[in-house]
Amino acid sequence: MNKKKILITGFSGFVSRHLLAYMQENDHDVNVCGIDVKPPAFDLAAFPDIMVTYHIVNLLKTDEVKCLLEKFRPDYIIHLASFSSVAYSWKHPIECFQNNTNIFLNIIAVVQELHLKCRVLSVGSSEEYGNVTEADLPLREDRSLTPCSPYAVARVAQEMLSRVYADSYGVDIIMTRSFNHIGPWQDTRFVIPGFISRIAAIKKAGETSGTIETGDLSIVRDFVDVRDVVRAYYHLLLHGKSGELYNICSGTGIRLSDIVDRIAGIIGIRVDTVTNPDYVRLNDNRIIVGSHEKISADIGWEPIIPLDVTLRDMIGCER
Amino acid sequence: MNKKKILITGFSGFVSRHLLAYMQENDHDVNVCGIDVKPPAFDLAAFPDIMVTYHIVNLLKTDEVKCLLEKFRPDYIIHLASFSSVAYSWKHPIECFQNNTNIFLNIIAVVQELHLKCRVLSVGSSEEYGNVTEADLPLREDRSLTPCSPYAVARVAQEMLSRVYADSYGVDIIMTRSFNHIGPWQDTRFVIPGFISRIAAIKKAGETSGTIETGDLSIVRDFVDVRDVVRAYYHLLLHGKSGELYNICSGTGIRLSDIVDRIAGIIGIRVDTVTNPDYVRLNDNRIIVGSHEKISADIGWEPIIPLDVTLRDMIGCER
Repeated sequence: MNKKKILITGFSGFVSRHLLAYMQENDHDVNVCGIDVKPPAFDLAAFPDIMVTYHIVNLLKTDEVKCLLEKFRPDYIIHLASFSSVAYSWKHPIECFQNNTNIFLNIIAVVQELHLKCRVLSVGSSEEYGNVTEADLPLREDRSLTPCSPYAVARVAQEMLSRVYADSYGVDIIMTRSFNHIGPWQDTRFVIPGFISRIAAIKKAGETSGTIETGDLSIVRDFVDVRDVVRAYYHLLLHGKSGELYNICSGTGIRLSDIVDRIAGIIGIRVDTVTNPDYVRLNDNRIIVGSHEKISADIGWEPIIPLDVTLRDMIGCER
Repeated sequence: MNKKKILITGFSGFVSRHLLAYMQENDHDVNVCGIDVKPPAFDLAAFPDIMVTYHIVNLLKTDEVKCLLEKFRPDYIIHLASFSSVAYSWKHPIECFQNNTNIFLNIIAVVQELHLKCRVLSVGSSEEYGNVTEADLPLREDRSLTPCSPYAVARVAQEMLSRVYADSYGVDIIMTRSFNHIGPWQDTRFVIPGFISRIAAIKKAGETSGTIETGDLSIVRDFVDVRDVVRAYYHLLLHGKSGELYNICSGTGIRLSDIVDRIAGIIGIRVDTVTNPDYVRLNDNRIIVGSHEKISADIGWEPIIPLDVTLRDMIGCER
């Protein structure tokens, strides 16, 4: 019997690692081919029951992409590769566009050119919604988009290209707008792991209280556990409706200051904060909270991991 | 007294040629620096009263763009450079994205980085609207966008980036959605010059009737004379409202079959048409007609050249 052939782009990243863990736990009937520009920092021996290989491929090079897709001929593509930092996109807008929109276009154009019979999961971002008012909340998929960073524009362009290729060529694509996902092993240049790392450092130093530098703590975000996210991705691949777009979110907004308090509470120290202007993003969205009604209705997915469990697991990783 | 320093990208193209002709006729107080990847096919001696130089610059190369902008320090940038063919964008989607969105991002990022005090005209396209229903007509700037080709997506991304840079960095940008412009000297790979060239060839061969191959003649477009368009661009640069977006259109829809009949009438022969599937575009918009109410209200611009005059002038060029 043939295993499901799954291509994962951005293989060496944190989301991919959780996706592999999900398959290791739930579905061994897979043949995974990972691609990335660098090898994974995690150990593939953690996934003994699934078939996994990976290749160093630059998605900006059409020839490399074509060669690999022609050889592997995936049944599914999960496109995780992205320069996903809003802050970085302000400093390097051109790189951001190339490593979001252009790499996606390279993949999808090759899928169409080779007439591959495969389903593509195009991962987008809640940043696409841009600045919204309280009246728009929770954000549904049909809300108009007002992206307000180069990263957000690049993601909107990716989504529009997905729709063009689905409508015009019948390419089997499912799109997501994934909200801020957090979880163990996430890089500390992202906001929550950054908080944890700085607060844990105070504890490690033997102090019972301390001060950390932060950006604007008054903004509200919808945080969803990465393990819930990869479960959504996997089920969308297998059961989602072709050509549809889905929010993947917790449905609950939380202020960043509350997150700092919770982390301090779990670690068991008192934390004061001071604003460092370097951490404050240009023209940032005040509040982003999504609705997961559509994905819940279509494939029955719901987030199940409570925020405190996520934070505890992230803190556990840090120790 | 210092002349207005105007940078024109896509200098060697057909729109630029008309823009130079407009300045030659109406405003000599300009110092024009043109850039393109190839020299113009037209003769600069046609513009004796305006100061014009040009440079071969690849807009994809940030360093070249930066070097030139740093030296010239324009007061105005008119960004005409574009791979503007929808058909081409289906065949070469990646090139299309690079030569629309990415080149624009290169320019605007350099303008921001160098803190240039200049106004940028970001030229977009009516293709951004995508498939619309009769009820949406005439299209106003606030209609939602459903782009349906790689070219259209690239233009939407350019417009969204314009807005991001205007809102976040205060870059002085005016955006357009320019509808199908036609006029003398236009390349015959565009639809109307293509019709004229094929119909004129029948006449030149001494026949009184003949047959030409076409794409889908039932689609309706809003054609505006390029000389009206460049007048709009020039007035927007000088008098448009910063951060605003303007349709540039005739406000009138015309079926392609009617255009064929008019051309045949002017040339004085009988023309039959036969559909060549190679000319039929994938997933094409059925009908695009714009409203120019906003630009008329803000700067008093209106299209003034009737379609028959445009067609006669184009036919005159062909002889």
